[in-house]
Amino acid sequence: MPEVLVTRRVHFNAAHRLHNPAWSDAENARVFGGCNNPNWHGHNYELEVTVKGAPHPDTGYTYDLGHLRDLIERVILSQVDHKNLNLDVPFLKGIIPSTENVALAFWRQLEPHITGGRLWSLKLYETPRNYAEVRADLL
Amino acid sequence: MPEVLVTRRVHFNAAHRLHNPAWSDAENARVFGGCNNPNWHGHNYELEVTVKGAPHPDTGYTYDLGHLRDLIERVILSQVDHKNLNLDVPFLKGIIPSTENVALAFWRQLEPHITGGRLWSLKLYETPRNYAEVRADLL
Amino acid sequence: MPEVLVTRRVHFNAAHRLHNPAWSDAENARVFGGCNNPNWHGHNYELEVTVKGAPHPDTGYTYDLGHLRDLIERVILSQVDHKNLNLDVPFLKGIIPSTENVALAFWRQLEPHITGGRLWSLKLYETPRNYAEVRADLL
Amino acid sequence: MPEVLVTRRVHFNAAHRLHNPAWSDAENARVFGGCNNPNWHGHNYELEVTVKGAPHPDTGYTYDLGHLRDLIERVILSQVDHKNLNLDVPFLKGIIPSTENVALAFWRQLEPHITGGRLWSLKLYETPRNYAEVRADLL
Amino acid sequence: MPEVLVTRRVHFNAAHRLHNPAWSDAENARVFGGCNNPNWHGHNYELEVTVKGAPHPDTGYTYDLGHLRDLIERVILSQVDHKNLNLDVPFLKGIIPSTENVALAFWRQLEPHITGGRLWSLKLYETPRNYAEVRADLL
Amino acid sequence: MPEVLVTRRVHFNAAHRLHNPAWSDAENARVFGGCNNPNWHGHNYELEVTVKGAPHPDTGYTYDLGHLRDLIERVILSQVDHKNLNLDVPFLKGIIPSTENVALAFWRQLEPHITGGRLWSLKLYETPRNYAEVRADLL
Repeated sequence: MPEVLVTRRVHFNAAHRLHNPAWSDAENARVFGGCNNPNWHGHNYELEVTVKGAPHPDTGYTYDLGHLRDLIERVILSQVDHKNLNLDVPFLKGIIPSTENVALAFWRQLEPHITGGRLWSLKLYETPRNYAEVRADLL
Repeated sequence: MPEVLVTRRVHFNAAHRLHNPAWSDAENARVFGGCNNPNWHGHNYELEVTVKGAPHPDTGYTYDLGHLRDLIERVILSQVDHKNLNLDVPFLKGIIPSTENVALAFWRQLEPHITGGRLWSLKLYETPRNYAEVRADLL
Repeated sequence: MPEVLVTRRVHFNAAHRLHNPAWSDAENARVFGGCNNPNWHGHNYELEVTVKGAPHPDTGYTYDLGHLRDLIERVILSQVDHKNLNLDVPFLKGIIPSTENVALAFWRQLEPHITGGRLWSLKLYETPRNYAEVRADLL
Repeated sequence: MPEVLVTRRVHFNAAHRLHNPAWSDAENARVFGGCNNPNWHGHNYELEVTVKGAPHPDTGYTYDLGHLRDLIERVILSQVDHKNLNLDVPFLKGIIPSTENVALAFWRQLEPHITGGRLWSLKLYETPRNYAEVRADLL
Repeated sequence: MPEVLVTRRVHFNAAHRLHNPAWSDAENARVFGGCNNPNWHGHNYELEVTVKGAPHPDTGYTYDLGHLRDLIERVILSQVDHKNLNLDVPFLKGIIPSTENVALAFWRQLEPHITGGRLWSLKLYETPRNYAEVRADLL
Repeated sequence: MPEVLVTRRVHFNAAHRLHNPAWSDAENARVFGGCNNPNWHGHNYELEVTVKGAPHPDTGYTYDLGHLRDLIERVILSQVDHKNLNLDVPFLKGIIPSTENVALAFWRQLEPHITGGRLWSLKLYETPRNYAEVRADLL
């Protein structure tokens, strides 16, 4: 049975700041520029989650995208939407919230919940022009 | 000679309904929700077709994207645009028209016509937030 | 106090068909073309609703866009999303569901519920390339 | 000589919080919901600025859109990009940074600098689905 | 009978150059910058045409948008698509092809052909961030 | 350490013409159609550059996307923006500027400059509906 990739796109808004606590303020400002602003800045994030699998003969679904949306809502969005990624999110504590790191953390939250299909790709857009992708074949 | 992927994006509008005739109405409503509405609903579908190959030295083309558009028009769009995917399309008869199944059926229609290059990916967007992708390396 | 326009955009999916029951099938097919398909076709509609008013000093809101979203959901989307605009929607009965006519019908549903601000514009996108706009100053 | 509207679209990222200091925390949470999060949230804002005027016979320009971009950069973006709208922006001090109020404040910053044309509209998108517009004919 | 605005969006690709033949090369370079490049540059233009009128009771159409698309194709796109706006287009001869001037010229081409409705707005996007609009109420 | 893909999207405007100097004018017109127009046409190109690597523990960055933007600006955009791809760009001399060939040429310009990560994909959109992708695993 051929496998098909299915993707659900969702969005959330959050504040964050790039800051390495092991560095001086000057070093942080030099490396992270405006992204280091002590009073935070924020984004409309877009998140795409892709699952790989063979469509089920009874439904035609690789994975019910309504269920996937609900799962993403429960496991990720309920914790990050309208939040501060540095301060408010237990599973991001101690992580510099770059797009790469946040995408990896989202993958780790979501992956154990995907059954009857394989989590294949997770793309996180910080802006329409900057994004990071975690993929099963690169881990 | 290096290979390059080239993609053409097209669109069409269609009605459909997700329904498994082997199930009761109640079971269909439970599994498919609003997508099971007996009087149909519909979408502005977007379709991306990607071909892989080495650009030809005389033209710089992996595949002439005007020809690809015409081929998609002839083989697929002429049969599905402004149509009902459950009732009007011979090559979809007996298939539950989930995005996954429709994408697989489109692949089977299109693949025999792609010569001088290899059909590499076919992405079907049911909405800007839900899509399925068939890929040569997953078949 | 200066007035500001605020807009909320929402989406829904529906099937429809353009058909004038006073005409012959041939006349309908000639005028409406593919949009007259007896088995329906459909769209991902996008709807933008704009309210005009002075921002309230206590909130900075012309109109709470979360409340506007809930109002549109209750008054319009709950009746048209994943539905057939010709068959399933009481307030569209007897109306040819062109984008213009549907937009006018939506306006009539929504307008009595907008208080503490004035319904100013309602834009309905049938596709990203075709849309209709009803405006308070043209009624 | 006919007048033409010309528009330049720019973007910026910022954190903010909706909060009325005259209210209790409970009242703020009730009215503003997630937008009241004490640790902020944020957005990728898009800003469209429209100027009205007759194109100059020597250039064909109503207003040089490169100059308009530089003006917006100098007067607005340099103060709000990668900033906290509640804490970092002198011209927003004491204002609840709703989309409406921020758009009005931007208008007041920009309007005195537009000469040889009239500032006609300023649209501020907080998300692709929520935006506010200030217009010369509503002030 | 209430009036409704209906819009059709189309696209075309063209080369152009901003250059005032009454000026020296140095003056042209100073005023128009990169847009004055002697060997041209180009754009994917998007054009939105809006017609105002009461929907016809027999069709629900203010203006048949398929007819409007064909009209724009015949009167405008056939002359500008894949062309050089300075050299190839009779109705643009002697005009500096700024977005404003091209939009005005398109209006003059199109307006005499719109009957049974009033040409209300013509928006020309040179890029997604720069556009000009000609409107009936500003002429 | 898991690897993550990071992408930066940029844009530029350029004129070009598809033309094989070894062919007659008639043959060129037959093969390339409107793209062969002797007076050129043009596009708003969008370019996406993707780098693969493990996020650095000190920054959370696979590759600083601000640095990547500056690199693309210096190595590619400064040579092609507001230019004629056939006449003005030394590294494109003698190449038919199809999307495929331009993408390959961009890759060759950029690849030697990417260190501390691997250039993984380069996508060039000629229009929103036509694009080419060069990938490390296809070279």
